[in-house]
Amino acid sequence: MSNIRIGIVGYGNLGRGVEAAISQNSDMELVAIFTRRDPSTVSIKSANVPVYLVEDAPKYKEQIDVMILCGGSAKDLPEQVPHFAQWFNTIDSYDTHANIPAFFDAADAVAQQNNTVSIISVGWDPGLFSLNRLLGEAVLPVGHTYTFWGDGLSQGHSDAVRRINGVKKAVQYTLPIKDAVNRVRNGENPELTTREKHARECYVVLEDGADANVIETEIKEMPNYFADYDTTVNFITETEFDENHQGMPHGGFVIRSGQSGEGDKQILEFSLNLESNPMFTSSVLVAYARAAYKLHAKGDKGAKTVFDIPFGLLSPKSPADLRKELL
Amino acid sequence: MSNIRIGIVGYGNLGRGVEAAISQNSDMELVAIFTRRDPSTVSIKSANVPVYLVEDAPKYKEQIDVMILCGGSAKDLPEQVPHFAQWFNTIDSYDTHANIPAFFDAADAVAQQNNTVSIISVGWDPGLFSLNRLLGEAVLPVGHTYTFWGDGLSQGHSDAVRRINGVKKAVQYTLPIKDAVNRVRNGENPELTTREKHARECYVVLEDGADANVIETEIKEMPNYFADYDTTVNFITETEFDENHQGMPHGGFVIRSGQSGEGDKQILEFSLNLESNPMFTSSVLVAYARAAYKLHAKGDKGAKTVFDIPFGLLSPKSPADLRKELL
Repeated sequence: MSNIRIGIVGYGNLGRGVEAAISQNSDMELVAIFTRRDPSTVSIKSANVPVYLVEDAPKYKEQIDVMILCGGSAKDLPEQVPHFAQWFNTIDSYDTHANIPAFFDAADAVAQQNNTVSIISVGWDPGLFSLNRLLGEAVLPVGHTYTFWGDGLSQGHSDAVRRINGVKKAVQYTLPIKDAVNRVRNGENPELTTREKHARECYVVLEDGADANVIETEIKEMPNYFADYDTTVNFITETEFDENHQGMPHGGFVIRSGQSGEGDKQILEFSLNLESNPMFTSSVLVAYARAAYKLHAKGDKGAKTVFDIPFGLLSPKSPADLRKELL
Repeated sequence: MSNIRIGIVGYGNLGRGVEAAISQNSDMELVAIFTRRDPSTVSIKSANVPVYLVEDAPKYKEQIDVMILCGGSAKDLPEQVPHFAQWFNTIDSYDTHANIPAFFDAADAVAQQNNTVSIISVGWDPGLFSLNRLLGEAVLPVGHTYTFWGDGLSQGHSDAVRRINGVKKAVQYTLPIKDAVNRVRNGENPELTTREKHARECYVVLEDGADANVIETEIKEMPNYFADYDTTVNFITETEFDENHQGMPHGGFVIRSGQSGEGDKQILEFSLNLESNPMFTSSVLVAYARAAYKLHAKGDKGAKTVFDIPFGLLSPKSPADLRKELL
């Protein structure tokens, strides 16, 4: 079988992660990277892989089996997915949960018309966590589902702190509260408030002359972002920041705590402990690119989510080998 | 939509669990239970559900959408699955890992010919654990997969102890060794021997006059079952046994510890903590019965495994609701 030929649109953290993940999968090859920047200024890791302007992508329709779209959810993906699905099978990591239905419909209309497959909202949440939310309630219809995030860096909350006057650098970590997690794991099915589920911890480098007390108060009282949480603010030196807070760890867990038909407590848990959030998301995107390729090869089309994809399609192994080795 | 009409073959722990699980799913109804015993001697929990002789099952072909086969893997299922797949969509929990390929082929031949869907080897291992083994290696192709079982009651090992002369009652619990689990969760990717992964703990009630030392030695040196493990044998009174060792708890975890493309450590874990092993397996069987029904309604046929089933088919919710509520 010939390799699955992948294109990447966008070369930020996620695009770089997809490039690296493809190199771990011997049934795949990276054909080209597409960028909105001047291609001559984009330095990539792969030798012999060309960088093209994003506008030129349709020219490579015949050379690319699946296009992995690595833009952001706010502006890039709502535009890019319906655009690229005209010519390519696509994978994206659209993660604005509330807008997923509309996003799906837009992708589906284009993909149906053009006989392409577009798997949307791939990653770990939405993605692998969603799968486990579904599995938990399908298998144990009587019960409660809990999603906890962290320990992990939240990009949105870090940005919010960085926008405060007097803040030079900042990161924010989301921390699941251990007591709440333990109660859930014990099958207590607690009702948990926002404050009881997660805490927020900030590491902040101040600009010269900034007032720590003022900034700490401003962070803790910020509506939507921090006001509903117990927030700790740590002021640190720039050296310490650069040494210890450059990574992008994340993770969390989905727990289904239910009762089977005769009242026995049954608990399912899926957890992730990630040293790099974007690198892991990229790895998931690449596995689902394989599924998009296989579905398209069978004549399938339209928008899909992780709920529509049998796990067997994620693997390079044949169904017979999977049954023999992994079942 | 009319309900999914379910039949059960075999009314042991698993059959009773399926009966109870169906009552938790409002889109399903139990039509009949089939037994090899004299039906008049079988007392079931559901009011108004008939019990029939297993030989009469084909007569109910038009009344039953999915037949859930609740027999044992050793003798019942290899015979029953190809038999019932002639008339019914079937679900089974066949768990003799080494024979799964042949079992699949036998089911597939019959199901293909008779336009039925036969989902084999459903449960948690094989089943949900298998799915997570596949997912782990597909998403993180560079890494190691570990499966730990327990804390839980092992039926096969309990039976082996009970067969010893002088043993009146016995149970055996399989315990994952915490140090090994912690090393795996830390991403150390250890090479672990059988002895380093699991320990075995037996609770034994002796017959009058039996020699505890002789029996303890016989257990600990039993090849295949105990010789390769650190085994603890506790002799207890029959009263204590009856009070504390009647349950069938089980569980365990599948851990994938891998590195994404730039070398970051990434760890996935799926775990189950089950108060009742058979009741949970039954709950999984019922969710997959829904998938068999939907596949058959779409004109699909043949043998399938959990690897072939998109999670969306396990849920009573529509694809649009799943995207909106759970993605």
